[in-house]
Amino acid sequence: MDADPVITDPELYSVVFENERVRVLEYRDRPGDRTHLHQHPDMVIIPLATFRRRLTLDGRTVEIEKVTHDAGWVPAQSHIGENIGDNDSHALFVELKQPTA
Amino acid sequence: MDADPVITDPELYSVVFENERVRVLEYRDRPGDRTHLHQHPDMVIIPLATFRRRLTLDGRTVEIEKVTHDAGWVPAQSHIGENIGDNDSHALFVELKQPTA
Repeated sequence: MDADPVITDPELYSVVFENERVRVLEYRDRPGDRTHLHQHPDMVIIPLATFRRRLTLDGRTVEIEKVTHDAGWVPAQSHIGENIGDNDSHALFVELKQPTA
Repeated sequence: MDADPVITDPELYSVVFENERVRVLEYRDRPGDRTHLHQHPDMVIIPLATFRRRLTLDGRTVEIEKVTHDAGWVPAQSHIGENIGDNDSHALFVELKQPTA
């Protein structure tokens, strides 16, 4: 299992809330910022800005856009993320701690 | 168990995403709006505005303020909510479907 993003990229990811069931992360970066390889459990993303990213996962790259307040599901995965847009990224992640039923 | 807020107050609550593990609700209201009695499972609230509410639960009332982007935990509960502020409310709720481990 790859590392926790709070460990790999503490200047980009911070914990804003945690209990036995969830952990809520805040993510902020600037254009050109790139994370180290890290692991996410199943989670919900809540974009607080509209931003563009390149994700490197499973040996391929995908380019995605996230739209302000357009919440969505992110299945457990390891990736590297890079801000390829012209503005800062800002998002909250609600990570699920319980494994799938 | 009290009713689902999407059933009791469909003009205030809407489903924006759902799978087997979570349901994400969007809540919007205006000053003076009041919900019917409804039930929430354990969930995370993500306020998208700063707003003030009066909650009626377990025969008592509490007044709370939610601050934009200040995510927090809401344990399972039944309540009536009322907008007692001067501005519209706006929030997302990430409801957990799995029972506590």
